[in-house]
Amino acid sequence: MSSIGTAGARRANHGTDALLAVLRERFADRMTTSMSVLEQHGRDEGHHATVPPDAVVYAQSTEDVVSVVKLCGEHRVPLIPYGTGTSLEGHVAALEGGITLDLSRMNRVLRVSPEDLDCTVEAGVTRKQLNEHLRDTGLFFPIDPGADASLGGMAATRASGTNAVRYGTMRENVLALEVVVADGRVIRTARRARKSSAGYDLTRLFVGSEGTLGVITQVTLKLYGIPEAILSAVCAFPSVTAAVDTVVATIQSGVPIGRVELIDPFAMAAVNAYGKLDYAVAPTLFFEFHGTKAGVAEQVALVKEFAASQGGTEFRWASSQEERNKLWHARHNAHYALMAARPGCRAWPTDVCVPISRLAQCIGETEADLKTSPLMSGLVGHVGDGNFHVDFLIDPDKPEEMAEARRLNERMVMRALAMDGTCTGEHGVGYGKIDFLTAEHGEGVALMRTIKRALDPDNILNPGKIVRV
Amino acid sequence: MSSIGTAGARRANHGTDALLAVLRERFADRMTTSMSVLEQHGRDEGHHATVPPDAVVYAQSTEDVVSVVKLCGEHRVPLIPYGTGTSLEGHVAALEGGITLDLSRMNRVLRVSPEDLDCTVEAGVTRKQLNEHLRDTGLFFPIDPGADASLGGMAATRASGTNAVRYGTMRENVLALEVVVADGRVIRTARRARKSSAGYDLTRLFVGSEGTLGVITQVTLKLYGIPEAILSAVCAFPSVTAAVDTVVATIQSGVPIGRVELIDPFAMAAVNAYGKLDYAVAPTLFFEFHGTKAGVAEQVALVKEFAASQGGTEFRWASSQEERNKLWHARHNAHYALMAARPGCRAWPTDVCVPISRLAQCIGETEADLKTSPLMSGLVGHVGDGNFHVDFLIDPDKPEEMAEARRLNERMVMRALAMDGTCTGEHGVGYGKIDFLTAEHGEGVALMRTIKRALDPDNILNPGKIVRV
Repeated sequence: MSSIGTAGARRANHGTDALLAVLRERFADRMTTSMSVLEQHGRDEGHHATVPPDAVVYAQSTEDVVSVVKLCGEHRVPLIPYGTGTSLEGHVAALEGGITLDLSRMNRVLRVSPEDLDCTVEAGVTRKQLNEHLRDTGLFFPIDPGADASLGGMAATRASGTNAVRYGTMRENVLALEVVVADGRVIRTARRARKSSAGYDLTRLFVGSEGTLGVITQVTLKLYGIPEAILSAVCAFPSVTAAVDTVVATIQSGVPIGRVELIDPFAMAAVNAYGKLDYAVAPTLFFEFHGTKAGVAEQVALVKEFAASQGGTEFRWASSQEERNKLWHARHNAHYALMAARPGCRAWPTDVCVPISRLAQCIGETEADLKTSPLMSGLVGHVGDGNFHVDFLIDPDKPEEMAEARRLNERMVMRALAMDGTCTGEHGVGYGKIDFLTAEHGEGVALMRTIKRALDPDNILNPGKIVRV
Repeated sequence: MSSIGTAGARRANHGTDALLAVLRERFADRMTTSMSVLEQHGRDEGHHATVPPDAVVYAQSTEDVVSVVKLCGEHRVPLIPYGTGTSLEGHVAALEGGITLDLSRMNRVLRVSPEDLDCTVEAGVTRKQLNEHLRDTGLFFPIDPGADASLGGMAATRASGTNAVRYGTMRENVLALEVVVADGRVIRTARRARKSSAGYDLTRLFVGSEGTLGVITQVTLKLYGIPEAILSAVCAFPSVTAAVDTVVATIQSGVPIGRVELIDPFAMAAVNAYGKLDYAVAPTLFFEFHGTKAGVAEQVALVKEFAASQGGTEFRWASSQEERNKLWHARHNAHYALMAARPGCRAWPTDVCVPISRLAQCIGETEADLKTSPLMSGLVGHVGDGNFHVDFLIDPDKPEEMAEARRLNERMVMRALAMDGTCTGEHGVGYGKIDFLTAEHGEGVALMRTIKRALDPDNILNPGKIVRV
């Protein structure tokens, strides 16, 4: 694995050896220093360098987490929480060495309350596992970042995905968390009431904190009734702008659309090749409509009208579960399809999010950048939120390609910020976007640093992510 | 005004006189020590004792706020932000003396972006002022706590109200804040993107912080298109349980109801008397349906079915804006109607919120408590959220009445907590509910204290509220 990007200097740490001995004693075969396991835990699905930890410990309970957090604190050794490793901005890289705490074995669904439309799961439960568990209840958990991520990890990175436009992100869908904080105390951030004014919003403090303020061990989530009617469709447009303007009209008119996704022509060609599909190679929108039968019919009529006025007239519909799964499978595979479009390459995925009124311009200028670059890349997006992604297809051993991806990424981020947008809509900061935070938040970064110092004074928890201390 | 409840000891402070001189110099007639103004600023609409500050300063700009925050910090004198004084748990009481910073003159709507469905206002703009401003745009801001509160104050207390069941609370509807923190720095908590994963959620940290972590000076809010169809209705039920079960069925079936409010028979009688109305004196639900015409018709059909199965068959409908306003005016006046039911009394308003599956039991047991108490009281609630209120009608000069209200309040709160609910769904903590926070959050309170100490090390900002330091 090539080294990409700037990994921080490994912390000179004489406590590590002593800690490893204690952990081996305490966790036996649930602790490993096998290089293949360390490397697997030191990389994510993005372009960042693999930076393995010194050991991996598999937690099976909150008590295990408390024990590891306390031991790391006593030995002043970094601790990196790990779910499925599907993050994208170097979140799990062991920049200063230390212990990676793998929570994937904490995978029990603890409670489902159909009457309250909520549930509590251990942090290692994945979103697909939860939905499989819910299969006979008529309920589902909507947040869908593509990867089958763990719900603890999704909370930690404030994930969202294709249907955030209708159901919100992890910010809106986490009711409460159990978190082990730096000194080993176990905090329950909230009760199960749908709303509360009882003090600081500890839940939202940990959602999106990327393991830097505490280790999430349980997640209480909102659930939703599966809509009476679900209808999906694919429609090609004469230009990216025409597609985006259709989305903008849809959002501004208040249509409660379930999903609306943009894929650019290069990515459509890749999706076709990867999935042996025959969609038009054009700027394309993937739609999903959720509601009652009459409600969906109303939504469809409106959106077809918006699309037609932008030259989008050929809707391909999917109504059965099987057809819809096929359609969304194609969309979800865009990342892998793009990588397959340049054999042997790696993808550098990035994302930004802007106010919807600026979306057409932001995507238009970004597409212009991409067209004039020698680098291959594809653009896809959760455009109903103003959020879009670019995958740069790079050979990490070619410094000129890395430099070009870095240049394009920086232009895209700074453009989004200039439009009152954010440097990341859903991928998070990790260390890949840490240098953009000051441009985005100014003095707010100092405030984040104050919070980090207060909650993790020895900088044990996932150091080097979000804010440098 | 009688002294009610425990006001903290006034801080022995030799810096106050020096500070007052500086403020008088700096703010001239925008600074006052007139006792009537001080008393007005030291009380809210709840039952708590008036505790006046040493001076009131009227801010006209963020720069004014920065100046007062810095001066209070230098002189180690408490600062209490003040909007409209419509809070309920002693939020504005100057428990340790100090300066009340009145933001009501910061009342400019700074920006409305119809295409992005958002706006930015100064903290002193009230919700009615904003909606008046939006009148010709087809948009509205839904959060409605009853009182015409300032939007800064609503953000600071994480307010909600009648249509949170559909549109969420201030937690979901604040996109970004401008905040002056304890050392005088001006923080913008976020950009205008609908979602972001760029670091800690500073917005949600300040929403609900009740002026204890910073002074909110600007609020960026989500807006909504006024629904095509709005229909309101009132329906009486044979019992509180029948009414609540109707609500539970409505929520569980996923009907996107705009508002659903419960009023108990005592409060209905008071509402009738106060508004010269002739509603049935019975457990009553007030409904509002928002959507397309067809969507509203679908919702109404379902809810009528749920209501009929619980014996609620007599719907009184209001479709015109004027009729609807009249209906909701009656609901919003419940608090004042209750006070009028016992001339000369004061109201002790309290609220809790529980998971919807526990709501019928929680309200049932609370009603049983109220029926066997000699104290007059009325129960109303935003029951779609699991949130309900009791107003105890008290003579604050009668210690036995205060003790009885305290007993009933404590039983109601502890009952809600035992049902995995919260000690306050929307009123906030102030100092009135500060002693329930440990029962609700346990170690979480220590974490809140850590955050308070980190952001306000000298305990200048609204001391004695949410957490004692």
